[in-house]
Amino acid sequence: MKIIGIDPGIAIVGYGVLEQRGNRLIPLDYGCIRTEAGLSVPARLKRIYDEARCLFREYGPDVVAVEKLFFNRNVTTAFTVGQARGVLLLASEEAGVPVTEYTPLQVKMAVVGYGQAEKRQVQEMVRLLLSLSEVPKPDDAADALAIAICQAHSTGLERLERGGWA
Amino acid sequence: MKIIGIDPGIAIVGYGVLEQRGNRLIPLDYGCIRTEAGLSVPARLKRIYDEARCLFREYGPDVVAVEKLFFNRNVTTAFTVGQARGVLLLASEEAGVPVTEYTPLQVKMAVVGYGQAEKRQVQEMVRLLLSLSEVPKPDDAADALAIAICQAHSTGLERLERGGWA
Repeated sequence: MKIIGIDPGIAIVGYGVLEQRGNRLIPLDYGCIRTEAGLSVPARLKRIYDEARCLFREYGPDVVAVEKLFFNRNVTTAFTVGQARGVLLLASEEAGVPVTEYTPLQVKMAVVGYGQAEKRQVQEMVRLLLSLSEVPKPDDAADALAIAICQAHSTGLERLERGGWA
Repeated sequence: MKIIGIDPGIAIVGYGVLEQRGNRLIPLDYGCIRTEAGLSVPARLKRIYDEARCLFREYGPDVVAVEKLFFNRNVTTAFTVGQARGVLLLASEEAGVPVTEYTPLQVKMAVVGYGQAEKRQVQEMVRLLLSLSEVPKPDDAADALAIAICQAHSTGLERLERGGWA
């Protein structure tokens, strides 16, 4: 089972690709798509869309996991992030990959086991769970890996509920 | 000069296609793209994207005009509309068509000449300016035509400022 976690934004989109083999989570790739501030918004969205399509073609994920909107953010942020998220969901749909979404609380619970966990704790747990020597950089990539881990754990839970093969 | 005005949304996207010949504005087409509530958000976004691409191919617009976010809206609306807007901007970029954006105030000023104009007044002016027998339906199509008219008038102003060939 291959999972791509995505943390959308217009300037930077974090991504993390995991392979789930039984109880093991193997990080295949992580990083970010950056778009130049000098580009128009439509050009930045096209850049994000094109790169996401490349990523999906390269790894052929079984599922794409994104964070649900964090409603504490302001309207302008929500709108801007929404635009980027729109083209990422489109790329997923075109690749025939189902999309799941998780709240920041669900991600923290899945990764740290504690909903009030701080960003640093989440990042450190991502490092430990994926046996990485350092915390993944930039933060957006670490966040994307956390979302992918959340998806991996949720799949396990769903399986458990459906009949116990996790 | 062909202009497509767009009023984005996830359930319904209004569009209006105008041709500007000198001082005349000729409505070529207007209507809306609807997406079923039963579809997933990625599927709805793909529907919007595909239909927008068809529209751009059919009419070959010189410019696409969209409304700037109305900041009185709430965060959830901004996020949802943002996603739809994202795939519409992507379709414009892929078609090589520049995108312009106008605030609701600019649209009202351009269409009615009065920034506090009510929705009904804007719609009635759209009808009059385009010599239509009835107010275009649904509202989203009328709004899209109003945005296209705003673009047409702004182009005139820009030309005027640059050296007076309007």
